[in-house]
Amino acid sequence: MSKIIAINAGSSSLKFQLFEMPREDVITKGVIERIGLNDSVFTISVNGEKVTETSDIPDHEVAVKMLLDKLTTLGIIQSLDEIEGIGHRVVHGGEAFNDSVLITDEVLTKIVELSELAPLHNPANITGIKAFKGVLPNVPAVAVFDTAFHQTMPESSYLYSLPYEYYEKYGIRKYGFHGTSHKYVSQRAAELLGRPVEQLRLLSCHLGNGASIAAIEGGKSIDTSMGFTPLAGVAMGTRSGNIDPALIPYIMEKTNKTAEEVLDVLNKESGMLGVSGFSSDLRDLEIEARKGNDRAQLALDVFANRIHKYIGSYASRMYGVDAIIFTAGIGENSDVVREKVLKGLEFMGVYWDPALNKIRGEERFINYPHSPVKVIVIPTNEEVMIARDVIRLAK
Amino acid sequence: MSKIIAINAGSSSLKFQLFEMPREDVITKGVIERIGLNDSVFTISVNGEKVTETSDIPDHEVAVKMLLDKLTTLGIIQSLDEIEGIGHRVVHGGEAFNDSVLITDEVLTKIVELSELAPLHNPANITGIKAFKGVLPNVPAVAVFDTAFHQTMPESSYLYSLPYEYYEKYGIRKYGFHGTSHKYVSQRAAELLGRPVEQLRLLSCHLGNGASIAAIEGGKSIDTSMGFTPLAGVAMGTRSGNIDPALIPYIMEKTNKTAEEVLDVLNKESGMLGVSGFSSDLRDLEIEARKGNDRAQLALDVFANRIHKYIGSYASRMYGVDAIIFTAGIGENSDVVREKVLKGLEFMGVYWDPALNKIRGEERFINYPHSPVKVIVIPTNEEVMIARDVIRLAK
Repeated sequence: MSKIIAINAGSSSLKFQLFEMPREDVITKGVIERIGLNDSVFTISVNGEKVTETSDIPDHEVAVKMLLDKLTTLGIIQSLDEIEGIGHRVVHGGEAFNDSVLITDEVLTKIVELSELAPLHNPANITGIKAFKGVLPNVPAVAVFDTAFHQTMPESSYLYSLPYEYYEKYGIRKYGFHGTSHKYVSQRAAELLGRPVEQLRLLSCHLGNGASIAAIEGGKSIDTSMGFTPLAGVAMGTRSGNIDPALIPYIMEKTNKTAEEVLDVLNKESGMLGVSGFSSDLRDLEIEARKGNDRAQLALDVFANRIHKYIGSYASRMYGVDAIIFTAGIGENSDVVREKVLKGLEFMGVYWDPALNKIRGEERFINYPHSPVKVIVIPTNEEVMIARDVIRLAK
Repeated sequence: MSKIIAINAGSSSLKFQLFEMPREDVITKGVIERIGLNDSVFTISVNGEKVTETSDIPDHEVAVKMLLDKLTTLGIIQSLDEIEGIGHRVVHGGEAFNDSVLITDEVLTKIVELSELAPLHNPANITGIKAFKGVLPNVPAVAVFDTAFHQTMPESSYLYSLPYEYYEKYGIRKYGFHGTSHKYVSQRAAELLGRPVEQLRLLSCHLGNGASIAAIEGGKSIDTSMGFTPLAGVAMGTRSGNIDPALIPYIMEKTNKTAEEVLDVLNKESGMLGVSGFSSDLRDLEIEARKGNDRAQLALDVFANRIHKYIGSYASRMYGVDAIIFTAGIGENSDVVREKVLKGLEFMGVYWDPALNKIRGEERFINYPHSPVKVIVIPTNEEVMIARDVIRLAK
């Protein structure tokens, strides 16, 4: 038995989950927020109850020290020696990493270099890695990349039809994200289907505030909707997804914004928020749509329409599909979105049961038994994937 | 019997086709090139033979006078009075025009206003309209818009997931193009299928140097791959199609280009030219790919892959499809592209015959007789659609 901690470090936050492996039991989990600001908040669950503490936490290293201190003082573990591995979520692994990796100095240097491709995320992830290295220098640490699972995409999927030297010189290509989630649900779907993942064509819909679709053939990602950045693909909470690229200069001219400012609008003021005009939260939109708010309805329609079309697109990509998976906040909980996405797909063998679709947040098949294509709701679990990779690589 | 002339005016060119209606016979056709430059070239077909003449043609009005003069002096018509109507191709009709329209002063003013949405095309089209108005002021003229056919798209198709006020204030939405071609082939497909277009779900692939796909349900376009401009959608000869919008600021920074300059790269140096590095012409790529040129092969794969995915996407959009149509230069002539696009679509009922697919430029079904989804190659004919609309509206 080993205790493994999974870490997801943001610029001012640090999420953690402590596992007992290989049983995959969650011993505790929590989050430290407002790191580097006043009134930082530390939240940890102890025997199923949330314990919160507010204090000033100046940096990630202090946050990590506090976390480790709490683990022992709250009696969750007896000694820090019990922690046998640390897994760090890292957003961008570029073309350098097609799997999780034990973090060495060389690996860390490479992750730093890759910050150019993920300027908002990798530096924060690195802060988490360094903080743990400072406090637990002898415990093996593993980096688990959001992009790694998609490195199996063929060139015809990942290459943009841009001048080829943009790929060679600047690394401009589709990378894809949410890989840890897509990998988890595809493996879980194979278990639920009772068939080897190598024999399956799976279509994974990770629908949260960020959303991406992946075509997974034989256990390998062969296409995905996000691109060079997580802005691409379907419409999301506040992100536009794909638009006519010619709109960027047009919007710049019309609104007198710089390209970076327009990009900011596409990332933060678009998607369901932009269309509805009032919320990026699908739950709000569902409530208002039921009350007859047209723009809320339109935002739901635009959101679901794009995903619906990706289902057909990726079914074509794989010459058919064995199962469609819904995961993450919206995918697990919104029967309204699932219904819109699945509607009318009988022509490709998708027969789903409206009664079963009513479930929320529960692992379950929602297709009719006779449906050639299965439809499965699977709560995602990126943290357990991180813990598994730590066990696999740190031993 | 009426003689109708169909005009497609570019910034320095003017294409024409003279029809005997309603028989739809082409009496003559030709093109005037290098208008406003030295050594302008006038080409016209007389009894099936091309006649060419080089001279300096300073502007479109002189070009039109020369054209009309040639029609009589070459004995193609006896008198200009025989021309009973003129049809002008106009690229952008915005939301103002959902059908062709008789050109009045008010209509012309509106087309001028819409130049903002098509700064390269509408002004050239207007030049053609004005030139004919100057020379044949009393002959009714009709504007036929590339965008009109797509005005039936529902809001969930045409709206981008951007701040809603961008649509209200700046007209930012999907317009779609190639409408005249998509409309022609969809009507022709209905004839060939022997079924009313109102009962059909058609997927039209207009694949030329520009390329777009349209989902046509009951004779109405409900979605199309081009967007606010003809840059969007699939990869094309030199156009990128959709890319991650975040790439524009990234390319600007890396190459030190302005947004407009990057847009120029996306329009003129991308697509198959960008990927292959040597040609935007599919025929060159097919030849080089057969010789083993990997980049040529890759360009073909990227091009066909995007179209292949749109087939699934728009089949989903229509809850299935009755027929897939290939048209325009590549669609009519490239069995290689059609094969890549159609491969593996049996899961949605598409069974096509490789032997029949070998045809070039001929109207023909290429599916197996038992295929639930039909596949039809239809040479497009935008000019005859223009002539038909003139007859319908000018009487």
